[in-house]
Amino acid sequence: MTSIFAMADAMRQGRVSSVELTRQFLARIERLQPLLNAFITVMGEESLEEARLCDAELSRGQDHGPLHGIPIAHKDLLRTAGVRTTAGSKILRDYVPTYDAVIVSRLRERGGVCLGKTGLHEFAYGITSNNPHYGPIRNPWDRERIAGGSSGGAAVAVAAGMIPFATGTDTGGSIRVPASFCGVVGMKPTFGRISIRGVLPLGITQDHLGPITATVRDAAIAFQCMADEPSGFVPPSDIDLHGVRMGWPLNFFVDGVDSDVLASVRNAGSMAVNAGADVQDVRVPDMEALRWAALTTLLSEAAGVLKKFLPAHRKDFGEDVLAMVDQGLAIPAVDYLEAQKIRGKIRREYEALFGEIDCLITPTTPITAPKIGQRTVKINGETEEVRAVATRFTRGMNATGFPAISIPCGFSSGGMPIGLQIITDRGKEDKLLFVAAAMEDALGIAGRHPDVS
Amino acid sequence: MTSIFAMADAMRQGRVSSVELTRQFLARIERLQPLLNAFITVMGEESLEEARLCDAELSRGQDHGPLHGIPIAHKDLLRTAGVRTTAGSKILRDYVPTYDAVIVSRLRERGGVCLGKTGLHEFAYGITSNNPHYGPIRNPWDRERIAGGSSGGAAVAVAAGMIPFATGTDTGGSIRVPASFCGVVGMKPTFGRISIRGVLPLGITQDHLGPITATVRDAAIAFQCMADEPSGFVPPSDIDLHGVRMGWPLNFFVDGVDSDVLASVRNAGSMAVNAGADVQDVRVPDMEALRWAALTTLLSEAAGVLKKFLPAHRKDFGEDVLAMVDQGLAIPAVDYLEAQKIRGKIRREYEALFGEIDCLITPTTPITAPKIGQRTVKINGETEEVRAVATRFTRGMNATGFPAISIPCGFSSGGMPIGLQIITDRGKEDKLLFVAAAMEDALGIAGRHPDVS
Repeated sequence: MTSIFAMADAMRQGRVSSVELTRQFLARIERLQPLLNAFITVMGEESLEEARLCDAELSRGQDHGPLHGIPIAHKDLLRTAGVRTTAGSKILRDYVPTYDAVIVSRLRERGGVCLGKTGLHEFAYGITSNNPHYGPIRNPWDRERIAGGSSGGAAVAVAAGMIPFATGTDTGGSIRVPASFCGVVGMKPTFGRISIRGVLPLGITQDHLGPITATVRDAAIAFQCMADEPSGFVPPSDIDLHGVRMGWPLNFFVDGVDSDVLASVRNAGSMAVNAGADVQDVRVPDMEALRWAALTTLLSEAAGVLKKFLPAHRKDFGEDVLAMVDQGLAIPAVDYLEAQKIRGKIRREYEALFGEIDCLITPTTPITAPKIGQRTVKINGETEEVRAVATRFTRGMNATGFPAISIPCGFSSGGMPIGLQIITDRGKEDKLLFVAAAMEDALGIAGRHPDVS
Repeated sequence: MTSIFAMADAMRQGRVSSVELTRQFLARIERLQPLLNAFITVMGEESLEEARLCDAELSRGQDHGPLHGIPIAHKDLLRTAGVRTTAGSKILRDYVPTYDAVIVSRLRERGGVCLGKTGLHEFAYGITSNNPHYGPIRNPWDRERIAGGSSGGAAVAVAAGMIPFATGTDTGGSIRVPASFCGVVGMKPTFGRISIRGVLPLGITQDHLGPITATVRDAAIAFQCMADEPSGFVPPSDIDLHGVRMGWPLNFFVDGVDSDVLASVRNAGSMAVNAGADVQDVRVPDMEALRWAALTTLLSEAAGVLKKFLPAHRKDFGEDVLAMVDQGLAIPAVDYLEAQKIRGKIRREYEALFGEIDCLITPTTPITAPKIGQRTVKINGETEEVRAVATRFTRGMNATGFPAISIPCGFSSGGMPIGLQIITDRGKEDKLLFVAAAMEDALGIAGRHPDVS
């Protein structure tokens, strides 16, 4: 797929119009949607109207920047005025908001042309995107496999070239997990860096918004257009990693990892060394405690948000989401408070660690995408629950609020994408994008696309 | 009792030394302590040493300001390095901290001479100060009556002239309730305005520190010495209330109030009008909802703090505190989260109200001090629980974090003090002190002391 940069360039040289781009992407969506189920709502004529407006503006010299006229899609958790916003739930099947999420209107101001609303795990509360109400979202690398979630539709749409940039949300890994499973770039910035106003909440202290794109430089453009206080930084074309101190965790992120995944991430580490990075062995804070804290927080907060639907709509919940809501209702306040204490403690420990290194590199997920409906997975002979495994390496950074990105770093022997996670200190998104771009260059696999037919 | 101003003045004119003041107050403490039980620990020789240091400094021209050389006392919830800090509990009977609370060292730097640690309700978790481990703290206006709590010892010490300024903490009214019951001034500044570092926690999102003094101007001096970012404002001697918009609540703060208390507070309102204030009828936000939110928050957070003592020390808790800890352990996280939502909503409603008025005036407590051991009280024929009644008008401002002060405004027919509460917007302590000083001048009863013998 062409990059946002290239499309923006072509538009300004008059080689393509926003209307033409929009028609092309709409056509691809139309063709692939029956196979992949990436979208819940597609906006045909409406998006063409927006594209016409963008073209007219550009012809008058009104240029809103790199996203001007570029087709985008929003996760169906972001409120869109006049366009239904289902949250992937049956309960909100007919909910049509009267106002836009901040990011929806912000990206429209920046010239993004919204082509539709992408599918997700029900209420963004899970990682399979095997949605009981809107059908399973299918991984374009193997349609019998899950896309990951909860921003599964967004990752699939980008991976399959149905859209160059889709927004995602991430409360426990919901941007990074599907990015990892689908072989695209997914970025979760620092907590609070992108306004979540108008996004249907799941876990109020861990909800993050971020971009899903095909490349790191597209992620940088998208992030800069989304951020409350953008720096404008986009990684240049020729960078190396001299002087960058990367941490390779010894006591977590490496155990219980599928051997293909571990080999691929280790290979990425070697490439980082070749590119000049100083890769050091480090010990990370107590990630099991952090995971307990993050999960306890999420279960409590999500139950707090979703309990209002129980009296009238208990039967309308999917089985897995309802079980988690019930589990959340039973959590005592003192456990929630204990979780907040642990989050604070481990956040401070990470801050100290980031005094010594610039970033951590880890697998994004210990596994590649499992089959749709598959509940357990065997890793090196041990059977584990898919849900717990998939978020093991992502959930922690929702609790600390530190920025993290997943980029493709290889493929399994079965041909499924593998994700590399890079984590930096609070507010260091520019550094994160810099390192990720250098890694992407070194790995040389960006833009490899599945053959969907 | 002489004011801090007058003492500071006399010291600088050489008419009295810090050592002489310290001796005088120590002597009074020694005489009254057996009658009132205001202190848990009295520091004799140690405080004289500090006083000598202050005198030496002043003689060298080293002047730390209005508190230099003035005797003070700390609630026994503030950590004092080398001096045991019991929190009024049996469990911490022998706890000797190795470091000072921020406010303890800050007030020492400002020249305050610490004479001792004042008694409190066990773990600051209650309002009777009828302490099962250290004995009941007695109201100097009627020793068969409670002091109020949890900063009961502090209020008694100030009311009985044992100390001109004592620190207090307030998580649901623990400064204002004893100030009201004992006829002294108690101020709870904006949440976060005074560092609570090193204070044993009770409810982490509602814990406040503040001064208890005999007059508003002494409270101003004390507050300015305690505040993280002091403005230095102390009300001048001749002020009036022209241009001040005071709110008189119609829908709360006036029902279920003892008739003597209501008459006294209404009288204060009339005096405010005479002093030039514009007193308006106002409707306040849903205080019952706010009280539920504040109490749910406190029960949860206090259980979170105190549960660590349960395995080894269940039997060492007082009956009332243990019951509240058990009650707190049973609160679900979703209720705690609901409470935080309500707090946010009502805080915003109060902010809107404070766009229209400068302050609210209310009774501090609906009743005067009940008898020690008394569990219920009859107000206008209705029987109510002492604990619930006493905090009904104070607890809300712990949930919003807005500043509030209690000043004496009269006496019941039985001769017990009545407190007037003034509440302002966040960060408006100077306005609060200004209004309180004007009211104190208008009421003309400051410094009236009980005859303890």
